[in-house]
Amino acid sequence: MTKDVEVVEGEFSAKDYHDPPPAPLFDLAELTQWSFHRALIAEFIATLLFLYITVLTVIGYKSQIDPNKMGVDVCGGVGFLGIAWAFGGMIFILVYCTAGISGGHINPAVTFGLFLGRKVSLIRALLYMVAQCLGAICGVGLVKAFQKSYYDRYGGGANELATGYNKGTGLGAEIIGTFVLVYTVFSATDPKRNARDSHVPVLAPLPIGFAVFMVHLATIPITGTGINPARSFGAAVIYNKEKAWDDQWIFWVGPFVGAAIAAFYHQFILRASAIKALGSFRSNA
Amino acid sequence: MTKDVEVVEGEFSAKDYHDPPPAPLFDLAELTQWSFHRALIAEFIATLLFLYITVLTVIGYKSQIDPNKMGVDVCGGVGFLGIAWAFGGMIFILVYCTAGISGGHINPAVTFGLFLGRKVSLIRALLYMVAQCLGAICGVGLVKAFQKSYYDRYGGGANELATGYNKGTGLGAEIIGTFVLVYTVFSATDPKRNARDSHVPVLAPLPIGFAVFMVHLATIPITGTGINPARSFGAAVIYNKEKAWDDQWIFWVGPFVGAAIAAFYHQFILRASAIKALGSFRSNA
Amino acid sequence: MTKDVEVVEGEFSAKDYHDPPPAPLFDLAELTQWSFHRALIAEFIATLLFLYITVLTVIGYKSQIDPNKMGVDVCGGVGFLGIAWAFGGMIFILVYCTAGISGGHINPAVTFGLFLGRKVSLIRALLYMVAQCLGAICGVGLVKAFQKSYYDRYGGGANELATGYNKGTGLGAEIIGTFVLVYTVFSATDPKRNARDSHVPVLAPLPIGFAVFMVHLATIPITGTGINPARSFGAAVIYNKEKAWDDQWIFWVGPFVGAAIAAFYHQFILRASAIKALGSFRSNA
Amino acid sequence: MTKDVEVVEGEFSAKDYHDPPPAPLFDLAELTQWSFHRALIAEFIATLLFLYITVLTVIGYKSQIDPNKMGVDVCGGVGFLGIAWAFGGMIFILVYCTAGISGGHINPAVTFGLFLGRKVSLIRALLYMVAQCLGAICGVGLVKAFQKSYYDRYGGGANELATGYNKGTGLGAEIIGTFVLVYTVFSATDPKRNARDSHVPVLAPLPIGFAVFMVHLATIPITGTGINPARSFGAAVIYNKEKAWDDQWIFWVGPFVGAAIAAFYHQFILRASAIKALGSFRSNA
Repeated sequence: MTKDVEVVEGEFSAKDYHDPPPAPLFDLAELTQWSFHRALIAEFIATLLFLYITVLTVIGYKSQIDPNKMGVDVCGGVGFLGIAWAFGGMIFILVYCTAGISGGHINPAVTFGLFLGRKVSLIRALLYMVAQCLGAICGVGLVKAFQKSYYDRYGGGANELATGYNKGTGLGAEIIGTFVLVYTVFSATDPKRNARDSHVPVLAPLPIGFAVFMVHLATIPITGTGINPARSFGAAVIYNKEKAWDDQWIFWVGPFVGAAIAAFYHQFILRASAIKALGSFRSNA
Repeated sequence: MTKDVEVVEGEFSAKDYHDPPPAPLFDLAELTQWSFHRALIAEFIATLLFLYITVLTVIGYKSQIDPNKMGVDVCGGVGFLGIAWAFGGMIFILVYCTAGISGGHINPAVTFGLFLGRKVSLIRALLYMVAQCLGAICGVGLVKAFQKSYYDRYGGGANELATGYNKGTGLGAEIIGTFVLVYTVFSATDPKRNARDSHVPVLAPLPIGFAVFMVHLATIPITGTGINPARSFGAAVIYNKEKAWDDQWIFWVGPFVGAAIAAFYHQFILRASAIKALGSFRSNA
Repeated sequence: MTKDVEVVEGEFSAKDYHDPPPAPLFDLAELTQWSFHRALIAEFIATLLFLYITVLTVIGYKSQIDPNKMGVDVCGGVGFLGIAWAFGGMIFILVYCTAGISGGHINPAVTFGLFLGRKVSLIRALLYMVAQCLGAICGVGLVKAFQKSYYDRYGGGANELATGYNKGTGLGAEIIGTFVLVYTVFSATDPKRNARDSHVPVLAPLPIGFAVFMVHLATIPITGTGINPARSFGAAVIYNKEKAWDDQWIFWVGPFVGAAIAAFYHQFILRASAIKALGSFRSNA
Repeated sequence: MTKDVEVVEGEFSAKDYHDPPPAPLFDLAELTQWSFHRALIAEFIATLLFLYITVLTVIGYKSQIDPNKMGVDVCGGVGFLGIAWAFGGMIFILVYCTAGISGGHINPAVTFGLFLGRKVSLIRALLYMVAQCLGAICGVGLVKAFQKSYYDRYGGGANELATGYNKGTGLGAEIIGTFVLVYTVFSATDPKRNARDSHVPVLAPLPIGFAVFMVHLATIPITGTGINPARSFGAAVIYNKEKAWDDQWIFWVGPFVGAAIAAFYHQFILRASAIKALGSFRSNA
């Protein structure tokens, strides 16, 4: 094995990075710290802004292309491409802004994946999810308050399975989409990365935002793209139509399964935790 | 509390960063320095270029989709998406170019927010705003000089409340939009960030530009998107129609209120200045 | 010669960077290492995700603009621009995620170019290509499983020469397109770069993703843009129509020739290996 | 003056950066160095690829929206937005790839600006321009070879003044557009920047590419956007129609004037060379 390859792959040799210890499951001391409450506030505000900007873009787009409206310019809207940018771009800036405060999750599926990877405690994970869902409800509520008539007419930004797709397809699309997102999150925040891959400097929020952008390009025609249970839940609560509630489970089960697979893939395949436990291939080398 | 979490949240412990002292309210010595005058020139030129490129894009777009023009290709224009890119992209490159000279504000609301956060003196803040407004007027003036007939016909790039929205909605949209921008500015330039978040390297101008891009995607259909009083004022001065002047107050009050909330949120919630003043939660821990 | 210029061009003087030794042609020891198998898994999964997201975007786009479908919004789709973003953006995030694991090739032409540049062994190159092709087949297979009726109707995302272009043009387009991509890969991963060009920090995956984006903008109308034999092969296997197989050779020969020219250009012209072998110009200076 | 402000503006105090000496006007020794010839080759190839990809995108776009063609999808093309991305994105990746070899000019106006700023010698500047023009001719020639019938029918990617604009407007648009580009180039490569603005890490090629993108969004409807004499010249040579030659001077005078103003603005206003020569304001402070 040449020295060159050693540099790229020598993770069994002396480490030049520091793996933080797994987060405890219950950490009651967190609850008494201002920094913990601040993190909850940051998640709440970030998810609120995320839903406000993105649902406003969706409603604005649909109002622009409505052929029943007079004087409408059918091609002037931002299009699916603009909607995909709104979701991806907001995740980019919000992860950038909140990374140092709360870790920048803004998504219960991301929180769940990082909990499985033992990056956050159970209590933190649950309270983050509550803050995210409340933020999402308030964000969509603001959009409805601003545009009452348009909001209901144009679907309220709610995630629903499009006509012609069955539930299995919707679930699969959510699973793989969330896998792409959470896999990117794990790759971007891997402590090994900072220490070694000096040829790949880490501007973590940008690829995370792009992952959201890409998944929206691909699956807006199928489910409207959830990959974020808080986003789907907040829109369903404010829109409150039967179809949105009937499909709601897809937007919780899919993202949580996708996040779990991504956590498993990163921890047990790419980081080789499984191999270390089972005894290393290395002894054969 | 584990060591890992301490690294992320230990802002009450010994600091590894340096908070600069608050800027003085009045700093007459600044007025005699070339670097101060140079900063004013840089703000003037940057705001001029900002308005020139963006308003030219808006006018060009509207001329492309005009159904009364012969031989027009209704879908060939850059669309709302292109307009949003023009605003966001220009802020990206201008903040990048002027950050080392003037701090790269290019927006009275940003200057106001940074003044409230005590990052710039009152005198600097006021003269920056004057330079920005003059630059905006000259920038829009250039567009009018280049395209006299198109300029008036296609709305002059002025911010006006769209039909069907009341003034409260417009004001709310400007407040939240400016909050997103100024919150990103505070996050990107936080001195704590540079010292600690080595997993989030700071390419500050990119997320700031994206914040502008995102807000435009969402609120172009409502107000045309101001979130920058100099931009709205410059266009109103050159366009000089009644409706633009009637709505003008929205594009000053909204951005200033939004910037103030963002400064408050960053300084008192995220940086916990309030808590330090009131006595810390920490004593309970 | 001034000191300034020396800094930029002094590659014959004492080196401040380390050229790794060429990879061996055969390195059987690799086969026994977990890190090697892990790299194959990472290439397989990355190519699967690449094809899944991009082909889903292509099919979704074509379904949106189908004039035979009722109630279709002809301008609502993501357009060629959205498709180009899907390909470029996915390469950005997948190279970012897999760079530390497998080098982030996700493309047999890139693997071939890096093999010619002696960055990877022959065995690694061949097994990477197999993993990439299998991943591509599975990724397109998932799309077909999700959208059986749409998949066949809208061309299956297969690369075919467009009507009105001859095979020579298609081949030329693939050669130059792949040259752009592989030239960017070589530039981004050049070890000289990290040591010296401190004014050009390396965020390698971003320009690599943009190279793919640019080539798609230019050549989607000609060949649909391959520049990745695994992508063309996977789509042809699942779509399995005669035309896609008839043109298949273009999407292997073109990319491999383009990658070879890029490897030659980088190694012998830009890195001046040829000159060192022939005796240096420098002795005349 | 507080310590804080000193950090931002103390350019008259002891320097923490190194200004390279001005490049000599004539440096015959360069001509005997391989690194100089290599730089010419790199400029030639980069300009060739730039024109090939961008003109192919322009022609492909016009062919897609041609209402005289059967079965055409009027909204499926990449649009002006896609064209603007093609120009901006190619500059991003080509500056990234060639920065360490030739400085990454790819544009005679940039070369001229850097010559005025005394960053390159006269001989280097002239030979770069020749290499750029030859590269541009070859790049457009390749597009014509690939698509003979489309090439002439859709305007050959040549820069011409649009109907309804006078020559003064076209010239002004080229001057300001090139100013934006060359000002960004100077800001991005300023040695002061690397040493001090640690809060603004320099990923220079990205803002340079965005500057090109922005200017195209704004001025495609006026002149098709030159801001690069090699690009306009190469297209005129291959297209070879009277109108393209009649307007050609605009695309040389405009960019050169714009680059000169940018060089003046950066060297004498922002870097305060003028002030140092005239005696400093500082003595009054």
